[in-house]
Formats: sequence, C-alpha cells, structure tokens
Amino acid sequence: MTGLSRRHLFGWAGAGAALAGVGAVAGCSATAERPALSGAESVVPFRGRHQAGIVTPAQDRLHFVALDLTTDNRERVIGLLEKWTAAAERMVAGAETTPGGAVNRNPDAPPDDTGEALGLPASSLTLTFGVGAGLIEKLGLTDRMPPGLAPLPAFTGDQLDPATSGGDLCIQACSQDPQVAVHAVRNLVRMGFGTTAVRWSQLGFGRTSSTSTAQATPRNLFGFKDGTHNVKAEDGAELDRHVWVQPGDGPAWLDGGSYLVARRIRMHIEIWDRTSLSEQERIIGRDKGEGAPLGEQSEFDLADYTATGPTGEPVIPTIAHIRLASADNLGGVRILRRGYNFVDGSDGQGHLNAGLFFIAFLRDPHAQFVPMQSALANSDDLMEYIEHTGSAVFACPAGLGEGAYWGQSLLEG
Amino acid sequence: MTGLSRRHLFGWAGAGAALAGVGAVAGCSATAERPALSGAESVVPFRGRHQAGIVTPAQDRLHFVALDLTTDNRERVIGLLEKWTAAAERMVAGAETTPGGAVNRNPDAPPDDTGEALGLPASSLTLTFGVGAGLIEKLGLTDRMPPGLAPLPAFTGDQLDPATSGGDLCIQACSQDPQVAVHAVRNLVRMGFGTTAVRWSQLGFGRTSSTSTAQATPRNLFGFKDGTHNVKAEDGAELDRHVWVQPGDGPAWLDGGSYLVARRIRMHIEIWDRTSLSEQERIIGRDKGEGAPLGEQSEFDLADYTATGPTGEPVIPTIAHIRLASADNLGGVRILRRGYNFVDGSDGQGHLNAGLFFIAFLRDPHAQFVPMQSALANSDDLMEYIEHTGSAVFACPAGLGEGAYWGQSLLEG
Repeated sequence: MTGLSRRHLFGWAGAGAALAGVGAVAGCSATAERPALSGAESVVPFRGRHQAGIVTPAQDRLHFVALDLTTDNRERVIGLLEKWTAAAERMVAGAETTPGGAVNRNPDAPPDDTGEALGLPASSLTLTFGVGAGLIEKLGLTDRMPPGLAPLPAFTGDQLDPATSGGDLCIQACSQDPQVAVHAVRNLVRMGFGTTAVRWSQLGFGRTSSTSTAQATPRNLFGFKDGTHNVKAEDGAELDRHVWVQPGDGPAWLDGGSYLVARRIRMHIEIWDRTSLSEQERIIGRDKGEGAPLGEQSEFDLADYTATGPTGEPVIPTIAHIRLASADNLGGVRILRRGYNFVDGSDGQGHLNAGLFFIAFLRDPHAQFVPMQSALANSDDLMEYIEHTGSAVFACPAGLGEGAYWGQSLLEG
Repeated sequence: MTGLSRRHLFGWAGAGAALAGVGAVAGCSATAERPALSGAESVVPFRGRHQAGIVTPAQDRLHFVALDLTTDNRERVIGLLEKWTAAAERMVAGAETTPGGAVNRNPDAPPDDTGEALGLPASSLTLTFGVGAGLIEKLGLTDRMPPGLAPLPAFTGDQLDPATSGGDLCIQACSQDPQVAVHAVRNLVRMGFGTTAVRWSQLGFGRTSSTSTAQATPRNLFGFKDGTHNVKAEDGAELDRHVWVQPGDGPAWLDGGSYLVARRIRMHIEIWDRTSLSEQERIIGRDKGEGAPLGEQSEFDLADYTATGPTGEPVIPTIAHIRLASADNLGGVRILRRGYNFVDGSDGQGHLNAGLFFIAFLRDPHAQFVPMQSALANSDDLMEYIEHTGSAVFACPAGLGEGAYWGQSLLEG
C-alpha cells in the first residue's frame, strides 16, 4: 500500500463523525420517521425507533438479497448478526466494514472490505433486516413465531418459482448509488459464508413508489405513476395503524417492527404495449400523462368511484386497478409500497425479462396484503399482463437502540 | 387524458430546442470528441463525425441489447433503421419516441412511447448502434463484410454461453439514469417486433472505465481501479490509431466507425475475497487503495516494468494483469474500454452472479483484442477468478450526418 485513499481517510474521519451523530440521535424516537436528504453525501441514521429503509424517502436503487441459514447453531447466528450490525452501521455512514478494512494493515490477510465502494459517499444507503419463518424454525424459536409469517395462500394466477421465493432472512439495501448498495450486500453475504448462503437476489434500477410527500411519484414499466396514495412518512397515526406492528399483535419481540412482503412480478410489457391508450387507462383507472383518477384533473385529486358517464357506466371501471386496490374497496386497508423496476436480461423468447419487484411494509400481511392481492388476482384486468414469479414474507424487527444488534429482540428477548 | 405532463410539454418545447441544437452542430466534425457534461439535464449530441457513446465520458449506467433479425428483407430492415434513428435522436434529446407519443391524440391506438421516462430529463443518454456478421449475411451483403467481424478464436478458459453471445445487431444505451437507458432500449426493441427479436440483454449498474481525463477512475468488483491508462477522448491521434477504423482498413462503409467487443465476464468474487491483499495486489500489479503501479506512489505514475526488488524479483510480477495488458507487452496495442459492473441475481449455489460486462471499442479486434486476450488467458493469474461466459463483436459505423439513418452507409453505400 502506497498511501491512504480518500475513502480510507473518510473511513476514519467522516465515519467517526457520522457515527458520533448516530449516537447523539439514538434516543430520539422519531429519527426514522424524519425524511432524510437525498444527496450523495447524505447519511441516513442507522439506529432509532424503527429500522431505516421503510419510511425513509425511497432511494432510487435497490439490491435485495434473501439468504438461508446453513446452520442451526444459535450462538453462531448471533455472532454473525453482531458482525453484520457493526459492518452495516459503518457502511451506512459511508465507511468500510471495518476501519481501513479495504487496505488492511496485514497484507498477508484478505481485506475485511472488498473495496469497490472506496471513494464513494454514503449515498443515503439504508440496510433493512428481516427474518423469515425458516430462521425461527431452524433455531428452535417457534414459540416466538409471529402470526404474520404464516404462509400466504396461493393466489389466482401465481407462477411462483421456489428459486426466487422464500428465504430464512433478508437484507434490503437501498441507495442513491447502486454500487454502494451492491457493495453493502456483497460484503454482508461474504461475512455470512459458513452460516448463510444466498438464496436469491434482486437488483432494482428505479423506484416505483414515493414514501414521503416531498417526493415526486415515479412511473412503473407500464408507464403509469404508481402509489400516489401510498402510506407516507408524514402520515403519523396511519403508520401505526397500517405499517408498524403494535403491542398485542403478536410476540413482543416484533413490536415496533413491520412485515415485508416481496413479490417478483414479471410484466409482459410487449403485450401491454399493444394495448390502446384508453384501454390502458381503463385498466389502471388513471390517465397516463398526469396520473389523475379518471374524471379528475390532477394526480392527487381523490377518485370518485360513484361517478357515472353519459350512458350510466362508472367513470372508473369496476375492475380498474386503483378501485380494486383502494382502501374504499378493502374496508380501509392500506399498505406502504416500496417497489422497484427491474430488467433481468432477456427471457430467451425475444423479449426483455422485465417487471416490478414489489415490496410492501405492513402491520399484518394476512389482514392487508392477502385481501388486496386476492381482489386484484380475481378481478384485475391487469393480471392479463403480469405474472407473480416470486414471493417472500419477512418480519423486520423495530429499530435498534445503542449497542443492540439485528435480531437481538428475537434471539435474546 | 386530463392534462399535459411535464415531459409532454418538454417533448414539444425542450426537445425542439435540443433538436435545433443538434442541427446546428451537425457540421462540426469534432462534436463526438468533445467531453459532455454529466448532469441530469445534459444532452449528448446525436449526430456528428463519430457515434456518441464511444469517447463520450462514460455514463454511470448501461443497458445493452443484442438482437437477431427475423427477416432477410432489406427494405423492411431499412424501414426499421429509419424509424429507430428518428426515435433515438428524440430520446437522446430527452423527448418521447414521437411528439406526444406517450399520451397520443388517438386514445384507441397503443401509445407510440411506453411512457416510463415521462418527466425524466435527457440524463446524458447515448445510443450506439452496431451490426454483427449475421446481419450482413442475412441481407446478402457479404461483399461488404468488414475483416474485423471474422470470428474471434477460442481463448483458454472460455465458457461461452450461446444464449448470451453473438447477435445480428446491438444497441448500447448509456445514461446517468438507468430508467432512461432501459426506456430507450425497451422502445427500440418494441419498434423492432416482426423484424428483430431480443437475443440477449445486459444491465450494468456501475461504470468501470473512464473515457475522459475529466473523470475519476472507478472501481471494478475486485475493488481495484481499472483502466487508468485507458484510451481517452482527449488522446487525439491515439484515437485514430487505436479506436477509429481508417480508410483502407476494410470496406469504406465502416470508415470512421469502430468495432465493439463485448465479453460477459463472471467474477468469482467469493474466491477473490479469500485472497490476501498482497496477493490481490501482485495479481493486478497495483496497490488497492491508491491504484498506483507497484513500486510507485500515485495512480497515474507510469509503471516501471524493469524495477526489481531486494531479491532480484520484478516489483511488478511477470504475470501481473497490468503488465500483460500493457502496450509495452503487446507491441504498442491499446484499446478503449467502456465496461460496467453487473449483478444478475444469484447463481443457485449460494453466491451472487456478479462480474464485469467488458466493452471495448477498437480499430481492429484481431490486431488488438485477440493478442491482449490471448496474453491474459494464457498467463494472467486473474483467470483463476473469472470466467468469460458471453462474447460478441459488432461493427459500429461512423456518426450520422443530417438526415442519415443507422446503418445507411452499409445498406445503401
């Protein structure tokens, strides 16, 4: 080694300052609910009442990984979770996994950090941790199994591939810079060798949801604005009602946490692209340009599901996606969506393998996701253009207090 | 439709201005050699002496697609190339494929533009077009086959998958915003239905090369800076020597163009990550933190391949990657690299499916890429950690004058 890199210096100075800052706000219960900046330099606090990466304003890029345990040794898993937590807190602050870890002092040892994020700023990285039913079973903790991890029912039209479904635990990495997100996942995966193995992994190149009123609504690969009425960081009591697990919902270790439902949704974009504009708008229930509910003027105008046209038919068709998924149609059910567009190469049949990696955070998958997805799978015309090819549910514990590690409330609570 | 979207407005006003700007500089032969800005709003000129996306400062994100012709009808192919060129010029300027094309005036027709880039700025999008040997053969133009499209030899260790190799033509989309790159490829693919079909497609999330002295050198997934001495936009006569096809090199239709060599290189990152820092540095020939050649202080210091250590061994090992790939070792051969890091999910064996999508532009694949890759494949210790799984060569014609379309010099020259 001939000198200190920029990142190396930053690892000592900048990360120290950032970590000090984390310590200073750890006692502030609202930390994770305060929208963060989106600039490359911005650091999202790692500890707080809730995990970051849920109501944090959705970053532009995603790397999501589901892993399986390759051991049932609880102490070994705890050891990994402690190491992961320390490394995650450092990486979120823009540092290497260990101080100077990419160009360590012992040249005869492998570097602690793989190095591809050297010189890159924190880039609003968040790392969100969740456990699946498999981890709880393998570690003999079934008395602590939260009810939301009960298997989802099969939905009409599901084409789930076991290879891209399930998993004993998950890490969601979101960042403004995909290299930063990939670096984080890769280093955590690496630290897990011998204890965990990658089950599946998904990159998302573009966010499809806003989780703060400060963000413009993005577009999915059908070209429509999506999630206009998403649950957002500023929604206060609605978050407790729809997103955060409340005391009494299940075992106490998950209080203040949230369930993560992931669905890999392949979109048959070439079929959609042959559909007329008016048909596309009828299927979605919004106009394509502005994103206004049919019959309204602006994106955030409320949909009028009772309005009828000149011949008496509903202005917003009865099978329109926004009607089926609306709280009105579902007895008040809402979810926080945080999905990403993906293209995974080609499908071998002349098309792009493209779609939406759906992620939702919610208080109860069976009371929220299941009725919503049932309504969509049974009635939604959109189902002609999509195919659910992967599915997983994870329980994401509350945020960490000072000194705590990922999963501690489950493993030691 | 209830109103004009921002992009829609921009499509008329902004794109008009941008297209006017393109017209104004089309006669300037150095257009494509002038480094462009990298901000979201910046527009890279579409027409010029050379195609954009070669010496254009490498954008951060990539979507590359290889297509096969599904017809041998030359007129039909010309019709598509004309449509592609018009749409590409508009998209590069930040507009839809046709004026107002995402929310067209006839609601009973499918929209011309798929819409997911509505509201997004030009983001330095470049679209670079190339033809493979298959197109020339299928259209009965073998008398115009350029010598550089002769098949590459098999290299030691090649594990090429036909499904991610070859192709009758290619489009390289580079942008600061992956949604903009994906939108462009998706819309061109869509316009090709009935004439072309996707053969393979690759997303790259992070650039691994600089093509301008104004850019910092990025890092590959081995954590090392890559391409410090890449051929760059500012290199003047070196570009004519190493990158641009010169009169007399082959059929005149390719004069001023360049060959594109693509190699999908899977990296076995988990094996690399178990290698000591000193061994990693010996294999590469640079230190990891600064990127300086071994024995030197700074990244851009010249490597001294004659220097020896205390026991007489070369400071830069004889099998070091930078020595094997150096112009010194290859009789003066240099190439312009423009590759990207990728992660394509997992490999089904507990690991990430990660690597480098290598792209090089050069004057003669057989005089430049073949000797370089032969030297690397036969001697490079790095080969223990990588596997070439895809390969393709395309001929990218010179840039377009006003009114010309992609491939015109080949099809009508």
